[in-house]
Amino acid sequence: MRFYQEEKHSAVDAKFEAQKIAFAPFVFQASMALRDLGILKIIEDSGTAGITQEEIVAKLTLSNYGVRVLVEAGLGMGLLIINDGKYTITRVGYYILNDPMTIANMDFVQDINYQGFFHLKDSIVNGKPEGLKVIGPQYETFYQALSELPEKEKQSWLAFDHFYSDDSFSRVLPIVFKFNPAKILDVGGNTGKWSLSCVHHNKDVKMTIADLPQQIAMAKENISQYKEGERISYHPLDILKPETSLPAGYDVVWMSQFLDCFSEDEIVGILKKALTALTDSGKLIIMETFWDRQKFEAASFCLQQTSLYFTCIANGNSQMYHSEVFIRCVEKAGFVIEEDINNVGISHTVLICKKK
Amino acid sequence: MRFYQEEKHSAVDAKFEAQKIAFAPFVFQASMALRDLGILKIIEDSGTAGITQEEIVAKLTLSNYGVRVLVEAGLGMGLLIINDGKYTITRVGYYILNDPMTIANMDFVQDINYQGFFHLKDSIVNGKPEGLKVIGPQYETFYQALSELPEKEKQSWLAFDHFYSDDSFSRVLPIVFKFNPAKILDVGGNTGKWSLSCVHHNKDVKMTIADLPQQIAMAKENISQYKEGERISYHPLDILKPETSLPAGYDVVWMSQFLDCFSEDEIVGILKKALTALTDSGKLIIMETFWDRQKFEAASFCLQQTSLYFTCIANGNSQMYHSEVFIRCVEKAGFVIEEDINNVGISHTVLICKKK
Repeated sequence: MRFYQEEKHSAVDAKFEAQKIAFAPFVFQASMALRDLGILKIIEDSGTAGITQEEIVAKLTLSNYGVRVLVEAGLGMGLLIINDGKYTITRVGYYILNDPMTIANMDFVQDINYQGFFHLKDSIVNGKPEGLKVIGPQYETFYQALSELPEKEKQSWLAFDHFYSDDSFSRVLPIVFKFNPAKILDVGGNTGKWSLSCVHHNKDVKMTIADLPQQIAMAKENISQYKEGERISYHPLDILKPETSLPAGYDVVWMSQFLDCFSEDEIVGILKKALTALTDSGKLIIMETFWDRQKFEAASFCLQQTSLYFTCIANGNSQMYHSEVFIRCVEKAGFVIEEDINNVGISHTVLICKKK
Repeated sequence: MRFYQEEKHSAVDAKFEAQKIAFAPFVFQASMALRDLGILKIIEDSGTAGITQEEIVAKLTLSNYGVRVLVEAGLGMGLLIINDGKYTITRVGYYILNDPMTIANMDFVQDINYQGFFHLKDSIVNGKPEGLKVIGPQYETFYQALSELPEKEKQSWLAFDHFYSDDSFSRVLPIVFKFNPAKILDVGGNTGKWSLSCVHHNKDVKMTIADLPQQIAMAKENISQYKEGERISYHPLDILKPETSLPAGYDVVWMSQFLDCFSEDEIVGILKKALTALTDSGKLIIMETFWDRQKFEAASFCLQQTSLYFTCIANGNSQMYHSEVFIRCVEKAGFVIEEDINNVGISHTVLICKKK
């Protein structure tokens, strides 16, 4: 880790940074409003010539006052600059408006997290996702709520969830298939997307998806559309229940962005079940995003903040781990790490493990 | 204005800045939690030697997990750094923990604004403070809610409100009294603090406080404790009502951080009433904070963001103005600006005006 070792700011700069944090909820909501009310797009379209506040107002049905407070706030927030009374968009503004990752992050924060995050401190104190009650007082974990969310909120969650994994699947297939596995167990198979990639990638492999019964039902529906889906079977279970177990005899047990949804103790328990699912020479292959393994500080930042979603909204005890904490769990469960491959896809690490 | 004229960030930096905005509500709430749960203080107390996460946990009744997600997020947010597994506090962290202005801003944002700001976009679209309904659906403006707030929330609002003005009063008295006024009208006299300063500063001056009847009642209670308070009289009114007027015959009409609570049209209307209150040679003296008149970019930023409080929570149509917009209103009401004095106190401008 080369980030986070040195003081970055002078006293004057640090005082400004502290104010940016103090007013951060305002900055977020004003940026959302500038984006969603079309103001950023109008300014971007004005190019390097720029556009006056009055001209922006003329293109919209908003008040002069409403546009003014937003564009003025947008200056201080670094989304806009002004010269001779004409606003132009900055690079930060450009990303807020156009970058798919930034859009996915902002929609996720607004639609799933903003209101619940008022209760972050209580979540830490009580060890429970106290922000989840804003979504529905009946839920114990967010996973129970997901299928019942309003459409907009559900789409925002799925867009965030998929943004980070979609790119990695094609890159990881060669890594998994270099072991010529005949049978793969896909633990936490979710929508079945990865198991489908495998049966399309290799004409012989047989897959089993292990997941919660509700997830299996969703996955089956997707998979039934493909002939290759015949090589996929299912093992419904609640893996946290002590009495459940995984099926045995697999060459590879695969877990992609699954274990970060659990606490350290739970990870150890799940991996002990994985141990019994593998043949003696079988490989446990884990794909995860670790915040200490990122090339870009921005990626580390996003992962650290995403941890707080797990704390406050998802289930209160999981996170995007530091690799050292995570690897301790893998070893404690009875595995040895043979290969440790960073920068797979946007921000993933692949761990190839064997029985100790 | 020397800020806001140039692109500041490279593409890589800008993408990071955009993520800071995307996760800004997380950054805010995590900073509050780090502060209020005592974690920042423990790290500050560890000095340059620093402290491990396990040692922090040992000093608190929080879980290892809860402390870990917060301190890891604190790295990315720039509040903490880490060397050899030991956390130390940065200058930004120091300000979050100790700086009275930062504390006042954060408490104000959390206790008065955070939840309501979910409705900022609607406030712009509807021209109403839509965030106020979170505080109470019965209120039309925040001013109706203030006296009925829970104690913690009320204190946060007052601390924010007073932080920026307390320092300016002593500095502005010589500016006002160089005109040797015999009678001063204090419009929007609020708690009576400034009128009391005047009667203490000068043994002859007679003051009149004009404000809403409820404010006058509060002010009277404060003022009755002082003998000099006998030279203060009262003029209760709702200045926005067309049928109300101000009393006449004053050498100075004084308005401190009052007009920013109104829209442009309302400001013109109020100032026309002030015109009739003045003797022919009388002075209108206005003290305001203009975001374009600040020495420090951080101060401009705070004022621009504070405008959004007026939009979303206070009354939906006022702001911390750009001086040009404000001065247009002053001139439109029939005044000429004689003196324009910047940097009075923390961030104030004093405008000395006479009848046109």
